[in-house]
Amino acid sequence: MSDAAVVGVGLTRFGKFPDRSLKDLAAEAVQAALKDAGIDGKDIGAAFGSNSLAGLLTGQECVRTQTVLAPLGIRGIPVVNVENACASGSTAFRLAVQAVASGEAPYALAVGFEKMSHPDKERTFAAIGAASDVEEAPQHEAGRSSFMDIYAAEVREHMERHGSTAEDFALVAVKNHYHGSLNPFAQYRNEVTVDEVLSSPAVVHPLTRLMCSPIGDGAAALVIGRAERHRRAPVVAATVLRSGAFPGRADHNDTVEAAAAAYEQAGLGPDDMDVAEVHDAAAPAELIACEDLRLAPPGGGAKLVREGATRLGGRIPVNPSGGLESRGHPLGATGVAMIGEIALHLRGDAGPRQVEGARIGLVHNSGGLVAGSPAAVAVHILRQP
Amino acid sequence: MSDAAVVGVGLTRFGKFPDRSLKDLAAEAVQAALKDAGIDGKDIGAAFGSNSLAGLLTGQECVRTQTVLAPLGIRGIPVVNVENACASGSTAFRLAVQAVASGEAPYALAVGFEKMSHPDKERTFAAIGAASDVEEAPQHEAGRSSFMDIYAAEVREHMERHGSTAEDFALVAVKNHYHGSLNPFAQYRNEVTVDEVLSSPAVVHPLTRLMCSPIGDGAAALVIGRAERHRRAPVVAATVLRSGAFPGRADHNDTVEAAAAAYEQAGLGPDDMDVAEVHDAAAPAELIACEDLRLAPPGGGAKLVREGATRLGGRIPVNPSGGLESRGHPLGATGVAMIGEIALHLRGDAGPRQVEGARIGLVHNSGGLVAGSPAAVAVHILRQP
Repeated sequence: MSDAAVVGVGLTRFGKFPDRSLKDLAAEAVQAALKDAGIDGKDIGAAFGSNSLAGLLTGQECVRTQTVLAPLGIRGIPVVNVENACASGSTAFRLAVQAVASGEAPYALAVGFEKMSHPDKERTFAAIGAASDVEEAPQHEAGRSSFMDIYAAEVREHMERHGSTAEDFALVAVKNHYHGSLNPFAQYRNEVTVDEVLSSPAVVHPLTRLMCSPIGDGAAALVIGRAERHRRAPVVAATVLRSGAFPGRADHNDTVEAAAAAYEQAGLGPDDMDVAEVHDAAAPAELIACEDLRLAPPGGGAKLVREGATRLGGRIPVNPSGGLESRGHPLGATGVAMIGEIALHLRGDAGPRQVEGARIGLVHNSGGLVAGSPAAVAVHILRQP
Repeated sequence: MSDAAVVGVGLTRFGKFPDRSLKDLAAEAVQAALKDAGIDGKDIGAAFGSNSLAGLLTGQECVRTQTVLAPLGIRGIPVVNVENACASGSTAFRLAVQAVASGEAPYALAVGFEKMSHPDKERTFAAIGAASDVEEAPQHEAGRSSFMDIYAAEVREHMERHGSTAEDFALVAVKNHYHGSLNPFAQYRNEVTVDEVLSSPAVVHPLTRLMCSPIGDGAAALVIGRAERHRRAPVVAATVLRSGAFPGRADHNDTVEAAAAAYEQAGLGPDDMDVAEVHDAAAPAELIACEDLRLAPPGGGAKLVREGATRLGGRIPVNPSGGLESRGHPLGATGVAMIGEIALHLRGDAGPRQVEGARIGLVHNSGGLVAGSPAAVAVHILRQP
């Protein structure tokens, strides 16, 4: 995979945009990515699009990516619609990387686009529920996704085993909202305090609303090209995708496996990482992910945030974008945006939220639930050329 | 693409199976393909699944392939959910081929699975409509998909330009039902006469019900492996996928383009083809496809069927499976089954419907409609090793 690079990044702000269509959001992201890459839509040789919810929210299935790319004149090439729940974006990116690395296309596009907000919020929660096996999933309760119940159960186990506390999780939310306040693409740009996080409405113990990723809309696009033609572009050092194999939470789980494979593919280790975007669909998930990714030892996630290591300026800033909690989590767009965020840091283009001197970055994106395991865990490593 | 081969074929019969689940149908196909390949599920290094309608018919989105593979123990590998309307199966196959050809996986699985039948038939038609841009598509009329209107308009143009007739289309349906009568996997195994086809209920002029693909359920799976390890397995000589670029019907259209690219990739021409499966969602589409694929000159499709060239025993048998009309067309399964059919012929394993001496075969699979063009056209060429 040494010759595929992220040569163009295009992001929309995430947020609630009732007056903007999927086509409109995707167009903004794709056009920005093409401009950033300095190429034209006609240069794209293959495209991979990710969207998770349109089928159940707008009735558009089967050809979602074509509907947003055709108006931009991007057609006459292989276009593939990709789904993998919350990891759809990373999956689309991985296929785009493979299309370039294999020589199939000089440039490939990964585009993620999602509108989650719906006048009937119950429709949104039901659609999110379709990211688990609908025959086995518990029905969601009114006003919240059943995923939060699952996250919360994992979190309570972590608290019991490792002594992590609700205050630790609040510290994650505070840090990520601070990061988000510096990110013009973030859904929430307000800082919050530990007290505000802890006293925000309870979702399910120990999660409060300010610890959870919001409902939002947005799009993100990446142009992948050949590293030798774009000598300043961040290179894809590892791409790993796994469908979950380890039911239940344990020290040895799918993220541990995927990360180990990614480190091996890149010839790097966790200590080499300068920055990471991890899948914090709820704040405690960031701590657990940091452990699973071996950015901290098992049980050591809380110490990272207590010491400020994962804050901008710290040893290993995590979720400089604001993370899913603050930057937002429009499902199909999330993985693409996470990878775009890391690419910007490696280029030194992340503005006020820039991780100084970042040379190597990791992206962890997880999605869905089938037979007690994540349906898809993706770990990517990018490095400076 | 010279080193990927179809090393295992697994098909279920297509039909209406109200008592069978998607998991059940997919399991039958996958287990048959693994057995045929002589490998175990644990040997599969990557899996690509195609399904088009479950989201709107069962509410299952995002992780459809994981839900059918996890019960079989196929997990811990990259699993990707793929959609491209009626060409979803070919798209999944193409990605599986690329996974093997690139060295990512020693074996990859393509599985298509679909249940179209729903107690409320209107739900099925609405779901099929989601394979076009729902913002621009005409609403379907009660009891039929809007796709048939579009097919019919193309067909009427062909009749005017080239003098093809409803009798010609009936001959296609008669031929394909004859082929289907020989295929244990076909949804319809009864022969029909020209009179029966012409007098069956009108769908939209000139299409009658017996010219149209039925609603059905089914699954198909293919194991892709490395040709040098399976020296008798049909080799993938070309894989081409195109999102439509040519609005409207013309002599130079997306299938013409995709076929030309496939012939070039394979280093072969239309005269080299011994057998073909083409996308006859309605009978006249077979004639038009034969022209676009250059199996006949423009306007020469009707002559092919009148002369019996496309019938078993003819010069270039087309749709020996019975085609979409007779074998059936459960959307996500179709492309995988078409490719499996050709693989069986190249192995000499097609039983009473065997095309004698078939060495090289073509598969044409088309899907969806966006901005007046097919959303995806796939052409694959397989050859004996």
